[in-house]
Amino acid sequence: MNFSSRTDLTIHSGLNDIFKTKDSQTISFAGGLPDNSLFPSEELAKSYNSVITGGDSTVFQYTGKQMPELREKISSKMNDYGVNATADDVLLTQGAQQALSLAAQLLIDKGDGLVVEGPTYIGALAAFDAVEPTFYEVPIEQDGMNIKVLEHILKHHEVKMIYTIPDFQNPTGTVMSVEKRKAMVKLANRYDVMIVEDAAYRDLRFTGTQLPTIKQFDTEDRVIYVGSFSKILAPAMRLGWLVAAPEVRGDLEALKSSADVETSSLTMNAVNDYLEHHDINQHIEEIKTVYCHKKNLMYQALTENMPKDVKFNNPEGGFFIWLELPEKFDMDQFLDDYLLPVANVTLVPSKNLFTSKSIHNGARLNFTQPTNEQIRDGISRLGSALTEYFSTVLV
Amino acid sequence: MNFSSRTDLTIHSGLNDIFKTKDSQTISFAGGLPDNSLFPSEELAKSYNSVITGGDSTVFQYTGKQMPELREKISSKMNDYGVNATADDVLLTQGAQQALSLAAQLLIDKGDGLVVEGPTYIGALAAFDAVEPTFYEVPIEQDGMNIKVLEHILKHHEVKMIYTIPDFQNPTGTVMSVEKRKAMVKLANRYDVMIVEDAAYRDLRFTGTQLPTIKQFDTEDRVIYVGSFSKILAPAMRLGWLVAAPEVRGDLEALKSSADVETSSLTMNAVNDYLEHHDINQHIEEIKTVYCHKKNLMYQALTENMPKDVKFNNPEGGFFIWLELPEKFDMDQFLDDYLLPVANVTLVPSKNLFTSKSIHNGARLNFTQPTNEQIRDGISRLGSALTEYFSTVLV
Repeated sequence: MNFSSRTDLTIHSGLNDIFKTKDSQTISFAGGLPDNSLFPSEELAKSYNSVITGGDSTVFQYTGKQMPELREKISSKMNDYGVNATADDVLLTQGAQQALSLAAQLLIDKGDGLVVEGPTYIGALAAFDAVEPTFYEVPIEQDGMNIKVLEHILKHHEVKMIYTIPDFQNPTGTVMSVEKRKAMVKLANRYDVMIVEDAAYRDLRFTGTQLPTIKQFDTEDRVIYVGSFSKILAPAMRLGWLVAAPEVRGDLEALKSSADVETSSLTMNAVNDYLEHHDINQHIEEIKTVYCHKKNLMYQALTENMPKDVKFNNPEGGFFIWLELPEKFDMDQFLDDYLLPVANVTLVPSKNLFTSKSIHNGARLNFTQPTNEQIRDGISRLGSALTEYFSTVLV
Repeated sequence: MNFSSRTDLTIHSGLNDIFKTKDSQTISFAGGLPDNSLFPSEELAKSYNSVITGGDSTVFQYTGKQMPELREKISSKMNDYGVNATADDVLLTQGAQQALSLAAQLLIDKGDGLVVEGPTYIGALAAFDAVEPTFYEVPIEQDGMNIKVLEHILKHHEVKMIYTIPDFQNPTGTVMSVEKRKAMVKLANRYDVMIVEDAAYRDLRFTGTQLPTIKQFDTEDRVIYVGSFSKILAPAMRLGWLVAAPEVRGDLEALKSSADVETSSLTMNAVNDYLEHHDINQHIEEIKTVYCHKKNLMYQALTENMPKDVKFNNPEGGFFIWLELPEKFDMDQFLDDYLLPVANVTLVPSKNLFTSKSIHNGARLNFTQPTNEQIRDGISRLGSALTEYFSTVLV
């Protein structure tokens, strides 16, 4: 039996590999997971209880529509970002992941050009693989995509879609500058390309000034904005959204219903109830305080424990710190041969986060899920492991 | 901006059109909806409460795996059907719809042959449209697909997948005979084709003897079995599953995670808790009693109210009765011009349930959602509307 050609593209399929551990003692910096203890569990429980014990069994039924009240609340959040969107412009999705999948289905025929950042979110690559694009990769700089490389690609290739994570990029933690956001929209207009702006981490700015969304500079309805409740509320609701112009949204809606019929009525009602009775912005402020502290802790630990020639950044928000070893270093091999089996620490090696010119010497470190103690202990173990690996294995 | 070619295929995208009504007084036989009042709402509420107020916030977290206990329970249900499956063979999906979408993504490259029944489930056509197959249609007979036509198609065309709903087919309510089930597997073996067996209605047999699943005759791991909790428990959990051989399942798992990362931990835990504390088979017996009564009521009302030359069947289970008017009759036009605006009744016309040789004179009638009174009243109105339409509009 021959399967479809999309199943040959297995390089990015290991989305769940990041959950790999050795045993219950493993310290994982690999996940993209929020801190359990910060979930507003009691408030969410109340909201669930309220909608399921209200005596209205329709909450368990098919609904046939996307809850207007919830979309209204999301659109008003979008308005706060300077994006001119009504409730109708919001399409609820099964996490941000489904939004990425739908956007790629909308825009890409097999072989069409799709620009991604290098490195980028591995789950996006998995979603895009399913439509078999031709990937073009633009290196990430400290202030986002290298726009000159982007322009060169758009000029010489047939590109349909640009995928970018402008705020606290996954995996590098970088933020795209305002100038580059404007330049990207201009290029998209000139070369007739759509932009998918993945803003899953946008709300989590610890320091510095929030920048305008790319969508805010969108003059020709070319930007599909993608948001998520997974990082600011909790992942198990599997609730994300996209904002797109009416012409685009109709097709996305049809693709959504072909993928899974609809978003759960129970989920929509519970999240809507939560947002009605609680100030999510206040909640976000609270989790930001904790995450900023953890980030500082990890940065400090890295400063104290990394051998020389190891580089790392100090991101202004998000979930991740990016680590870079000397050029010849193979992070995969170090992880498999030493870091996990000997030091019992795990991280995401850089290799699979690229579509072409993979670098093997980088790693993504998550600071939101581990406890303070795990951060201190794990980074110290990482430092010792690197020192030993350099002095013994690599000799 | 040009979108992908899959978005040109808009004929089957109207999955949500079946929820169309005129006003709150509309009697709808159009939906594929269970009866709200039969949901075990209190029990489900208890299960949700129990898992979200248990003090364990991990239920709101990413899980990275599909709950083994729940898959174990589903596999034991499969064993009751004579299907030899372990927990590992079960992949949880976002409703049966996602299982159909994943199977098509696994098996179909653009242009590959895909056999469907004519008529078939419109949501399946929507899911399949996204991978742009070449559709081949096999007419449904009283005992399932016309196997001779199927053989002819497989002999003369490159087909990768057969999609069938053998039990209480949507929309015709028919059941495929044992002989045809065996013959289909033989043909699949001979012509190297995969079968997707959609068993969403299988548990709802009111009368007669349950037949073996097609999967039971599967000797070469060619059958992907698809099940769902939507019709037997409640749709808002959006929980379905598929059972497939390991070789196939690995790719399906990767496609699942690329589509939406994972199934909600909260949902898995709640449904698992429900199944642990309640006998779902007992619950199914209870809803079958009500649905059988409603089916009898609708059949009786049709017998009393339909003009001559109107045919309808008396299905042994499922959600639907199939109606057939004389050959030249246009059900769409009747619905839009008369049935909905004048009689305020709605149903699903046959036209969009085919991929090629559409017939325009059929309709799907759902008997599970409307109340007894709505069934009596609605079918009576349908009868009067047809009689008047025949004698005035069609004169």
